[in-house]
Amino acid sequence: MPTAMQCDTSHLEQISRQVRRWIVRCTFEAGSGHPTSSLSAVELMVDLLFGGHFRFNLDQPDHPANDRLIFSKGHASPLYYALWAAAGKIEPDDLLSYREFGSRLEGHPTARFSLTEAATGSLGQGLSIGLGMAMVARYLDKSPSRTFVLLGDSEMAEGAQWEAIQIASHYKLDNLVGILDVNRLGQRGATMYGHDLDSYRKRIEAFGWRCVLIDDGHDNDQILHAFDELNADHGGSDRPTMFIAHTIKGKGIPSLENEGGHHGKPVDEDDVDEILAGFGAANEQIRGTIPPPILYQPDPPASRQAERIDYEIGDTVATRDAYGNALLRLAAKFPQMVALDGEVCNSTRTKRFRDELPARFFEMFVAEQNMVGVATGMALRGKMPFVSTFAAFLTRAFDQIRMCPYSDAAVKFVGSHCGVSIGRDGPSQMGLEDIAMFRTIQNGVVLYPCDAVSTEALVNAMAEYEGIAYLRTTRGKTPVIYDNDESFGIGGSKVLRSSDDDHVTLIAAGITLHECLAAHATLADRGVRARVIDLYSIKPLDHATIRRAADETPLLFTVEDHFPEGGIGEAVLTSLSDHATPVNCLAVRKRPISGSPDDLLEFEGISAASIVDAVERCRCTTQ
Amino acid sequence: MPTAMQCDTSHLEQISRQVRRWIVRCTFEAGSGHPTSSLSAVELMVDLLFGGHFRFNLDQPDHPANDRLIFSKGHASPLYYALWAAAGKIEPDDLLSYREFGSRLEGHPTARFSLTEAATGSLGQGLSIGLGMAMVARYLDKSPSRTFVLLGDSEMAEGAQWEAIQIASHYKLDNLVGILDVNRLGQRGATMYGHDLDSYRKRIEAFGWRCVLIDDGHDNDQILHAFDELNADHGGSDRPTMFIAHTIKGKGIPSLENEGGHHGKPVDEDDVDEILAGFGAANEQIRGTIPPPILYQPDPPASRQAERIDYEIGDTVATRDAYGNALLRLAAKFPQMVALDGEVCNSTRTKRFRDELPARFFEMFVAEQNMVGVATGMALRGKMPFVSTFAAFLTRAFDQIRMCPYSDAAVKFVGSHCGVSIGRDGPSQMGLEDIAMFRTIQNGVVLYPCDAVSTEALVNAMAEYEGIAYLRTTRGKTPVIYDNDESFGIGGSKVLRSSDDDHVTLIAAGITLHECLAAHATLADRGVRARVIDLYSIKPLDHATIRRAADETPLLFTVEDHFPEGGIGEAVLTSLSDHATPVNCLAVRKRPISGSPDDLLEFEGISAASIVDAVERCRCTTQ
Repeated sequence: MPTAMQCDTSHLEQISRQVRRWIVRCTFEAGSGHPTSSLSAVELMVDLLFGGHFRFNLDQPDHPANDRLIFSKGHASPLYYALWAAAGKIEPDDLLSYREFGSRLEGHPTARFSLTEAATGSLGQGLSIGLGMAMVARYLDKSPSRTFVLLGDSEMAEGAQWEAIQIASHYKLDNLVGILDVNRLGQRGATMYGHDLDSYRKRIEAFGWRCVLIDDGHDNDQILHAFDELNADHGGSDRPTMFIAHTIKGKGIPSLENEGGHHGKPVDEDDVDEILAGFGAANEQIRGTIPPPILYQPDPPASRQAERIDYEIGDTVATRDAYGNALLRLAAKFPQMVALDGEVCNSTRTKRFRDELPARFFEMFVAEQNMVGVATGMALRGKMPFVSTFAAFLTRAFDQIRMCPYSDAAVKFVGSHCGVSIGRDGPSQMGLEDIAMFRTIQNGVVLYPCDAVSTEALVNAMAEYEGIAYLRTTRGKTPVIYDNDESFGIGGSKVLRSSDDDHVTLIAAGITLHECLAAHATLADRGVRARVIDLYSIKPLDHATIRRAADETPLLFTVEDHFPEGGIGEAVLTSLSDHATPVNCLAVRKRPISGSPDDLLEFEGISAASIVDAVERCRCTTQ
Repeated sequence: MPTAMQCDTSHLEQISRQVRRWIVRCTFEAGSGHPTSSLSAVELMVDLLFGGHFRFNLDQPDHPANDRLIFSKGHASPLYYALWAAAGKIEPDDLLSYREFGSRLEGHPTARFSLTEAATGSLGQGLSIGLGMAMVARYLDKSPSRTFVLLGDSEMAEGAQWEAIQIASHYKLDNLVGILDVNRLGQRGATMYGHDLDSYRKRIEAFGWRCVLIDDGHDNDQILHAFDELNADHGGSDRPTMFIAHTIKGKGIPSLENEGGHHGKPVDEDDVDEILAGFGAANEQIRGTIPPPILYQPDPPASRQAERIDYEIGDTVATRDAYGNALLRLAAKFPQMVALDGEVCNSTRTKRFRDELPARFFEMFVAEQNMVGVATGMALRGKMPFVSTFAAFLTRAFDQIRMCPYSDAAVKFVGSHCGVSIGRDGPSQMGLEDIAMFRTIQNGVVLYPCDAVSTEALVNAMAEYEGIAYLRTTRGKTPVIYDNDESFGIGGSKVLRSSDDDHVTLIAAGITLHECLAAHATLADRGVRARVIDLYSIKPLDHATIRRAADETPLLFTVEDHFPEGGIGEAVLTSLSDHATPVNCLAVRKRPISGSPDDLLEFEGISAASIVDAVERCRCTTQ
């Protein structure tokens, strides 16, 4: 490893000048962007990438031996792209396509630029993602790879960063390196701590990280000397490292340096030429070298066939238990599968996986935002993370979840304790908006099995699906209604009861599917023929079967243990948006409260008796 | 203030014994609940409430002079209710209704128990809510009130707690007191730090709090002596205080003490009698005294009429600017209005309010979860908080938002930069799922004005609405289309173009409303008559007008700058769930990218040209 002495700092300085030119020019051309936020981190990043401490094989960017660099302060994207231009991976002229419609060089980095490790832009997420990558390197790939995360000071207000800081320390990740660009200025003014590096140091140290201060974050010698600390032997340091650098927002443009009021603004037309001249002569061809790591041949574990399931029709098994069983059973088939849980594995039932495959289970404690960020990082490094907690608590991480698609991170989510049917714990624990949340994920899959057999099949389907998937599990036991050999696919459904002359169709999933089956029996006794559809795949939805029911029966009901907005009812209504058959949506409409599951299903009008009642009232009205 | 010497610790001990009886009995009767988590905090809470340091007027629980107590570890609800029984506000027999269907004593505290300060149960939220109450006391009410928050150790993994810790320190809130119950055991096992009180102390001190350790959290003398620190004169301490207590989960039940595996489980039937006997003889009538504070006569500021608005039809004004104007203009009419912003006030335009009324503006930095928790606390203390940030970043706080209804906290939310039409910053900054999120809030209002006039009217409507409300603002300028005197109500809409023989109805809000107006003109040139409805109130929705359009026109379109799921389209489909007229929903369906607003509206098929095209294709198909 080169030391500060060995690096050609004058070359690094020249690269920094050109990087500054590129930053100013691309944002000026785009008419938008964050040049001043980018300028404060130039030396830090140039010295990191081209100073010898970062190892990356440009021809094999996905190799597990490579170091990783994430820009948690994603608005510094002009710098990010300029660095890769200096590395020879972006043509300088292409930098001028920054933020243009269709350009892969988007306003904040996304997967559309192939070297982007993870999409960022919503602050305070990059450290969790980097943590996930570092965990993969350390505990799964057993790679010497380091993960570097560029952090802004404003975003250190985000709690998710402190979740990551705690958990990185707990997991002894000395291969995770944060570089904190303390430029004092947030978007609308000074941060809480200004340039007081010590206020960051003492807090981050208190969490167990090693902190290295850089008094002048624009002095190459200081920076390189600090980075040399990465190689110093600390006798088995198990601590992550945070470099904390005093920087100047707008560094390189004297009229803007350290001044508020310039966040997110390209330089003025009147000033641009003078500013560019201030960086010295253009040197579009200057390039820096990134030493490659020693590549090793990864030895991925082989996939083995999963054991067959063996449930008995009529047994009662909670789908959360079936999920726990499935995770363990399928682990052999999907060797990249790992499980993350938020302190509730005894409730979500990932505990079995934890006990049997501890090397592939990661306790993420009561910190759901970080858990999702970590899963994102793991997915981006080729693993198949299953994230589990109560469905209600996944709302804690909606910002992280909505960012997954922009990284093309195929994270799998499983939310337990859905609906009012969890009972006496009351509404704080009830997932009542999770279907709505996950349905908004583009190309995401939303599944809600009603029994153990379908749960096992759908967990398998989630694992095989190349994208984001969410599965909802129920706390209470429900009857097994399917044969072990029954097949279930994403986008499928099951018609469980039907005749050639049904009076009504009942569409449900999960716990209310069983209520519909009971309602079917009662209605049958009263001469009312009800078709019953198990809509276990809410997104994508089985349009053909829904449409056929709408064609063949005069009235449809949807029944869900979920709020009415954005759930099964609205998914069916969307499917039938051009169809005339009326749809009556039963859902949780009253303020949910504590009570027994049966009392609450009844109270909310989604029990078998309520369904029968609703059907009969509707039919009276329409007849 | 009494000191430890003056308190009758034997009385406190007796109360503690009886409180333990109540905890064990009510969870045993309910067959569920968290007795061991409750037992670890008994002495801490009994000594707080009845040891003289907590001041509360039981006859005027809402008085601003009262201290406040929030159970951030909401699952210790058995303790919470037992305390109030010992205070004489719950009949001991009523404790046995715990968790019963219909009981106000829910599994986790909610507003249905009138003394609950705030609903909790989703961990890591109580400190933010307490922070909000402390801010109200210190900066708005100028009350000597203190806010106490009982915290669990597991939930200290939640980032939101560290957001609150940072910001409490920044705002110098020496009237905020945390009591951290370090019982070592989370739900599925030990926490990251076990009983290492110092690991909490050094971290919380590093953030600027004063920490006081209690080595034995079950020793009344130690606890009272520690609480005496609240009165010690520290020469103008501006620091919040955290008491960090070593406690035993399950304390009082020797067979369960400090053992894992008992979280969330009532005692066994075989053991209950012996356990109760272990607490000594029952003493159902024992009561503790809570000294009242000195009540003062609050002097609420008077409401004054707001100035009239004065926009010109045809001017272009961004609705985010109109929002900033409205907030300031209405401040006089709603003297309890306060504004909170997440480091983006120059973007959300709350900056004007900040500059003119700094005493009523609270910078909450890049920490949205805490911002929403603080707003919740403020609303519960009688203020009218307007929470502003980018719509996309409100997803960061979905867990906090979904908890608001259970507290009956009437928080107002305003999300800027909605939709792809923000342009070049790209998808990380685009609010595309916010309508879906806020529609799931029971009795919540969702508003999306298209111009400055309607924005001003709807901000007023939000303020007048006694509940949770959300308003979406647009980044770019849009034409003023309404007269200053036009009235807009929650649940209303405007039919902007119509005839007796319309071929199609276009329903939109916000930026796409203008696209529909442009499409209307183009279609008119081509002989197609389009009704145009401004659906500025998405929830509740103007069913009558939508239905009339469905009755009178053969085809409806909805157009929204939002994902298709859970938005305007599905709201309209729900409204017309029993109607035969087809609805065609245009929305953001392609992966959003950077680009100009116009390019993106076109790309996503929600521009005027796209609407014209869609209408013509549909009409060809149906003719």
